[in-house]
Amino acid sequence: MPIRAHTPRMLHPIEELRPIGVVQSSLTDPTDAPKQVDDQIGIAWLMLSDDYSAGLQGLAPGQDIILLTWLDRGNRAVLSVHPQGDPANPERGVFATRSPNRPNPIGLHRVPIVAIDDDRICVLGLDAVSGTPILDIKPVLSPSDA
Amino acid sequence: MPIRAHTPRMLHPIEELRPIGVVQSSLTDPTDAPKQVDDQIGIAWLMLSDDYSAGLQGLAPGQDIILLTWLDRGNRAVLSVHPQGDPANPERGVFATRSPNRPNPIGLHRVPIVAIDDDRICVLGLDAVSGTPILDIKPVLSPSDA
Repeated sequence: MPIRAHTPRMLHPIEELRPIGVVQSSLTDPTDAPKQVDDQIGIAWLMLSDDYSAGLQGLAPGQDIILLTWLDRGNRAVLSVHPQGDPANPERGVFATRSPNRPNPIGLHRVPIVAIDDDRICVLGLDAVSGTPILDIKPVLSPSDA
Repeated sequence: MPIRAHTPRMLHPIEELRPIGVVQSSLTDPTDAPKQVDDQIGIAWLMLSDDYSAGLQGLAPGQDIILLTWLDRGNRAVLSVHPQGDPANPERGVFATRSPNRPNPIGLHRVPIVAIDDDRICVLGLDAVSGTPILDIKPVLSPSDA
């Protein structure tokens, strides 16, 4: 089968994102957000918009989900960083790190569902500040699943 | 610490996405895309735009990455589906499935890097058709990492 020719220079703009909800939690200061995965953060609520809550059917407490957020404080012009914000760490390309500063600051969080209450989901250990827009929720399919 | 009040109704529009590259592979027909994770798909190239290739520094062959793509053929109005497209499966909310039809059709793919060649990355087993825009690349941090 022939490979279709594509050049990145011909990339078309993409349709706009539609936030499906927001994070509500006690984490309000981004400098409080842990630099690495950490389960000590407590609970957060995913507040879904009425328009999208029908999409939650089939999710259940105890299940792990992958949450995609829009890290709206990220600096989109950054292409390399010192990992964990530590100048002692040699610079790396942002795509080799989980820095919130990157061309498309989409946050990726794997969290367990603690409870579901109509159009809101309670999760544990979410490293995103309160007010962070939610883009998508996906089920985890296997232990090593992305 | 007080919880900031947020209502999903007050959601603001989000800045536009900027594709950082495109997938180039022999998978051109979306109906050929497997309905579930499958390693039989062969190799694909992630063709990064020159503007963003500096962000790849630190990635290496043998490493697993999480690729975020824009599934531009997804139907954004769909909120529930029959999983795997099989009418025998009871309907579920899209957020409890990996359907490409969802409000923000962001594809999530965990794939190993086979080779890196300047501004392109060769990966194995990617279930995305040729021409799919690439939004982000993230390193995998742990075996169970999302």
